[in-house]
Amino acid sequence: MAGPTLLFASNIDDPAPWQALFARERPDVEFRVFPDLGDPADITHALVWRIPDGVLASLPNLQAVFSLGAGIDQIIRDPAFPREKPLFRLVDGGLREQMTEYALYGVLNWHRQMDRYRAQQAQREWRMLEAVHPSQRTVGVMGLGVFGSDIALKLALLGFDVIGWSRTPKELPGVESFTGETGLDEFLGRSEILVNILPLTDETRGILNAKLFDRLPGGGALVHLGRGGHLVETDLVAALDAGRLDWAMLDVFPTEPLPAESPLWNHPRVLVTPHIAAQAVSAAAESAILGNFNRFERGEEPTGRVDLSVGY
Amino acid sequence: MAGPTLLFASNIDDPAPWQALFARERPDVEFRVFPDLGDPADITHALVWRIPDGVLASLPNLQAVFSLGAGIDQIIRDPAFPREKPLFRLVDGGLREQMTEYALYGVLNWHRQMDRYRAQQAQREWRMLEAVHPSQRTVGVMGLGVFGSDIALKLALLGFDVIGWSRTPKELPGVESFTGETGLDEFLGRSEILVNILPLTDETRGILNAKLFDRLPGGGALVHLGRGGHLVETDLVAALDAGRLDWAMLDVFPTEPLPAESPLWNHPRVLVTPHIAAQAVSAAAESAILGNFNRFERGEEPTGRVDLSVGY
Ligand SMILES: NC(=O)c1ccc[n+]([C@@H]2O[C@H](COP(=O)([O-])OP(=O)(O)OC[C@H]3O[C@@H](n4cnc5c(N)ncnc54)[C@H](OP(=O)(O)O)[C@@H]3O)[C@@H](O)[C@H]2O)c1
Ligand SMILES: NC(=O)c1ccc[n+]([C@@H]2O[C@H](COP(=O)([O-])OP(=O)(O)OC[C@H]3O[C@@H](n4cnc5c(N)ncnc54)[C@H](OP(=O)(O)O)[C@@H]3O)[C@@H](O)[C@H]2O)c1
Repeated sequence: MAGPTLLFASNIDDPAPWQALFARERPDVEFRVFPDLGDPADITHALVWRIPDGVLASLPNLQAVFSLGAGIDQIIRDPAFPREKPLFRLVDGGLREQMTEYALYGVLNWHRQMDRYRAQQAQREWRMLEAVHPSQRTVGVMGLGVFGSDIALKLALLGFDVIGWSRTPKELPGVESFTGETGLDEFLGRSEILVNILPLTDETRGILNAKLFDRLPGGGALVHLGRGGHLVETDLVAALDAGRLDWAMLDVFPTEPLPAESPLWNHPRVLVTPHIAAQAVSAAAESAILGNFNRFERGEEPTGRVDLSVGY
Repeated sequence: MAGPTLLFASNIDDPAPWQALFARERPDVEFRVFPDLGDPADITHALVWRIPDGVLASLPNLQAVFSLGAGIDQIIRDPAFPREKPLFRLVDGGLREQMTEYALYGVLNWHRQMDRYRAQQAQREWRMLEAVHPSQRTVGVMGLGVFGSDIALKLALLGFDVIGWSRTPKELPGVESFTGETGLDEFLGRSEILVNILPLTDETRGILNAKLFDRLPGGGALVHLGRGGHLVETDLVAALDAGRLDWAMLDVFPTEPLPAESPLWNHPRVLVTPHIAAQAVSAAAESAILGNFNRFERGEEPTGRVDLSVGY
């Protein structure tokens, strides 16, 4: 019987470091890069960011799928995705510190009115603006998983009043926990700054819409580093223009790259970044994914098993 | 014998909340606002940000001076300052969280290349820039006192490689400690981002000069939230223009307000803020200063006693 054969597929990641990693650490594994499948029956494992619809379903001996990212929505949106196969996401993989940096930067930029100070500087204007102590500033974090819980804890350590929203209740020191549709109302009503780091699922698709923006205190800020599919772009622009929101920092968009005609590009109260909140840090991501591959093969439980009944 | 009489003097602080505080908490204290001294012989205590040279020395019954700020350089630069009188600075007073916010913002703005992303956004350009994991980024914090130690600890918690410089050695988890002139060389040589939060003393005046910038790794960033007197403005502009430094965020300046003709205002790689890193948070500052006043009067030791032999 042939040894394991790993199919690598991504539209954004370079296969070379992954190929080198397996050549070094698991020379017994045959490494194939999509679209060079060879015989589909050889393929036992897949390491995927995105792959065209139907390809995974066409692999008769596929045993497991590993995501190159923390999210898996881009994989399971394939209607033919073989839902009975175990699917593992990347847990942390060195991304967490970067996600927290991004969220803190967005929170601080608005909380400390840095864009107003930049505008004043352009006018050579020396003028103190009124400050709010972090203990008087409520930040709401939507999603309290690997990334959201770290973001919430770090914000609490900086002295902010932090609340969080998740599917199941959480006990994080200094973070008030809200859950479900009932908890959402109070959570949103208090979130002067809303940080979204939910996964994209059937429940969360389009969640950043007019109805949600209307439930916020008004005049606050949004820091969005979840997934593009969470965001209803026209609703966001309307909320900004109506003053329901004062400012937004956005890393992910319904269409990426953000189309040149998007009104977000030159909106004076929007900071656009090109999906860079977390950029794969090879060493940590490599060891997380290689470790998961090895565990799966030895019959042990890898980390980051996706529960398709809840969608993440 | 008359009760205690407190002289309040500041060119930037409103006396009203302080007057109300003492009226409420210590109605036995007579509160006078400079320049309405009344009989100078009545005055037993002074609460001061700045007061003209010689005034404090003219108060025959002055027992103690309390600074409205964390620093006291602006008080002791009076050549006639009565150096034998106990002088107390404001320790923290709700300023610490704000100082840490400011320093983190500056570090993150440069570390995450946010100004380059802003420039790309203006061009509707979607392009990922190379990222550095915080563990691979060394931040040097000059001054590890009340503010500097908090800044260093929070940066370490975010995963940065943090080193610090102070007069006496420190043991802060995750922060490598350097001291004195001997330690300064290695400290500076490793500081890709330099955060200055020293007090202004005879030893530290003009410390941010060409000689210091030349000892940095080159191409890094400066976040300066100490005192204006630390900075040699022309040396900084030269270091920026020569690429010795890539970026600077500055809250304090040799002359404040920053004069309209300063080249810092419109330098493309300088972020200027108008001395707002920490803005007095009344409740915490009030309770710190009132507590100190009460302790001094009861013969107990207040916090923040200044040691004039070292100058802070
Ligand atoms: N911008 C970027 O560069 C970037 C990079 C990487 C990842 N991401 C995104 O970040 C997401 C989160 O990653 P993670 O590793 O933190 O995921 P995770 O550990 O699975 O956490 C997901 C969190 O969302 C909560 N949640 C899920 N569905 C919910 C619902 N319907 N209502 C309320 N809460 C819900 C979960 O609640 P429970 O705790 O109760 O399960 C959990 O707290 C990824 O899915 C990906 O889309 C973005
Ligand atoms: N930008 C703003 O809005 C703002 C607001 C408030 C305060 N500040 C400034 O912040 C400064 C620091 O405040 P703080 O409360 O943190 O002061 P602090 O607790 O007295 O700490 C001062 C630190 O600097 C170190 N230091 C002093 N002289 C030194 C020298 N010659 N060489 C090396 N290290 C030296 C001290 O070393 P040791 O630990 O060994 O004593 C200590 O770690 C204030 O003096 C003020 O100027 C700025």
